[in-house]
Amino acid sequence: MNNKNLNTLNIFLEEDDLSNLNKFLVKNKFSKIFVLSDTNVLKHCYPVLIQKCPSLLIAEIIELEGSEENKNIETVTQTWEALIALGADKNSILINFGGGVISDLGGFVASTFKRGIPFINIPTSLMAMADASIGGKTGIDVGTIKNQVGTIIQPNGVFIYTPFLETLPQEHLKNGLAEIIKAGLIADKTLVKQLIEKKANFDQIILKSVIIKASIIIKDPHDKNVRKKLNFAHTIGHAVESTFLGTKKPLLHGEAVAIGIFVESIIAYNKKLITKSELNMVQSLIVPYFKMIKFNNKHFKLIQEFIEHDKKNSNKNVLMSLITGIGKCNFNIPVSSEEIEKAFTYYHSAIGK
Amino acid sequence: MNNKNLNTLNIFLEEDDLSNLNKFLVKNKFSKIFVLSDTNVLKHCYPVLIQKCPSLLIAEIIELEGSEENKNIETVTQTWEALIALGADKNSILINFGGGVISDLGGFVASTFKRGIPFINIPTSLMAMADASIGGKTGIDVGTIKNQVGTIIQPNGVFIYTPFLETLPQEHLKNGLAEIIKAGLIADKTLVKQLIEKKANFDQIILKSVIIKASIIIKDPHDKNVRKKLNFAHTIGHAVESTFLGTKKPLLHGEAVAIGIFVESIIAYNKKLITKSELNMVQSLIVPYFKMIKFNNKHFKLIQEFIEHDKKNSNKNVLMSLITGIGKCNFNIPVSSEEIEKAFTYYHSAIGK
Repeated sequence: MNNKNLNTLNIFLEEDDLSNLNKFLVKNKFSKIFVLSDTNVLKHCYPVLIQKCPSLLIAEIIELEGSEENKNIETVTQTWEALIALGADKNSILINFGGGVISDLGGFVASTFKRGIPFINIPTSLMAMADASIGGKTGIDVGTIKNQVGTIIQPNGVFIYTPFLETLPQEHLKNGLAEIIKAGLIADKTLVKQLIEKKANFDQIILKSVIIKASIIIKDPHDKNVRKKLNFAHTIGHAVESTFLGTKKPLLHGEAVAIGIFVESIIAYNKKLITKSELNMVQSLIVPYFKMIKFNNKHFKLIQEFIEHDKKNSNKNVLMSLITGIGKCNFNIPVSSEEIEKAFTYYHSAIGK
Repeated sequence: MNNKNLNTLNIFLEEDDLSNLNKFLVKNKFSKIFVLSDTNVLKHCYPVLIQKCPSLLIAEIIELEGSEENKNIETVTQTWEALIALGADKNSILINFGGGVISDLGGFVASTFKRGIPFINIPTSLMAMADASIGGKTGIDVGTIKNQVGTIIQPNGVFIYTPFLETLPQEHLKNGLAEIIKAGLIADKTLVKQLIEKKANFDQIILKSVIIKASIIIKDPHDKNVRKKLNFAHTIGHAVESTFLGTKKPLLHGEAVAIGIFVESIIAYNKKLITKSELNMVQSLIVPYFKMIKFNNKHFKLIQEFIEHDKKNSNKNVLMSLITGIGKCNFNIPVSSEEIEKAFTYYHSAIGK
């Protein structure tokens, strides 16, 4: 494993205390420290953070609702206004303390406030630790279309402290697992094997997932080529997530990604990029563990519309990143709407609905 | 003169046709072309643009109100939504066609839409040609505080075609002249001489101004050190502009910068950075030609408050860029509120009000 990439991106896997975070805050003499977080995280995780990191006692807290429904420009504007009211300047730092919604939105706020102020991520969910807090993609939704607006900018540091996971409900742990499965499928066969055999603990699989992501991002921070591999499962995943965003039953990002993993693997199988036994392996990792939704015609029409809007498309082609084996992935593969429809038919019969 | 910097930043001074723009649009096969502009520019300049550049016949037009009052997040959101509705993808280009408000706002829209799509600037005002369209600073106002939010990203091209100036009212020409005077004062004594002797035409002084700005930006695109020189006149200028923003008598950016040039030169003189005769030279370039406002106590209190919020401040110090001679400038110079007050007293007596 290559930890050099983690150093380059200032990613720290903290041991039993938060010593790297403490050092970072002492070394950089920020004029003010702001913590962006949500009600739940402030209640369950903030006391631990303060105890381990006393320099944060003087921090100003900006509290949001950390749900996908609030990952929009109104919340961004409120946060800019809060920073102005609290006297933030170019030498202030924003600490995004929470799950993926907080780091996506907080990163966008910091990268645009006064044309960019320093920011770090302290992820508290498995999804954010293994995926969302890494790589510098920030974003907000426009209407129900996911991440239509954002920036790409590396945070000044990412500090991963796994004891925060202890407060997380079961469904949120699964949410993170989907991105870890995706990381294994595109780049690391042994990680997939560990996941199947349930032989690794969270610390180990988070580390592996972070290393996979970091090594890809170092090669292509601005998403021009190999970084697109990380989009595997996300063309379908985002479209499914958008379809249920704002309804009474919104999906967690990882729940949508799990469906995306399976459906896009079916597309890969139909294109003869993977074998039937490889598809079956994917199915066995996903279907028994994640919520598999039965889509009606109305859902499917919406999914197709969202795919049209997918930011990964170019010149009207639907371009997907698809696995070409377990631990291998290719990108910019054109997929027709007929192929998508055929994959959903297979999906529905496989989930038995 | 060094034109190499212009090439590096893809800045083109078009001769009697728009051949570089034509080549650029033909060479890059964009999926769609969007033109962001305002009512006036569309009426007076767009017919010329279309005639010179037939590839734009298929462009979609997004029409805004191009005034500073509309340089805000609501207008940005409307533009994002228009791009979505019109089917923009990552390979679409946004052409900012207008003055500084259009390129500031359009650059921000493009740099954040789908985490960044290509954009170019075609400035139509003297201010935008000589200054705003160059350098990659994008920005919008939050409330009445200028450019509190933005990004720094170089446009894919800037195409300067001076015949567009023929439609510009006199006050808007003066507006642009303020930034050209500033450019000369911080970096080019001979340009200042030309301006005093009224010996150059617009093409010549625009070219000089652009070369000054480009050579500074190449050295420091992200505003960490020497680029700060370009902020000369803008700490006071922005505070004055903000004070009148949203009132019945808003100032043009250049009108506020002209006042900023004079007041900050007085501060430089009081700090013994320039001589009395150098200050008199600045005064003779500004006072007879620009609107010199008499500020009452209420105005002055607001100006002081806006200076507090100035994005160029750091760690609560007010740091200014000040000329240290004609054609020379230094940055990060701490200035106290007493020094600012003293300069305004001098200003008021000099303008005879």
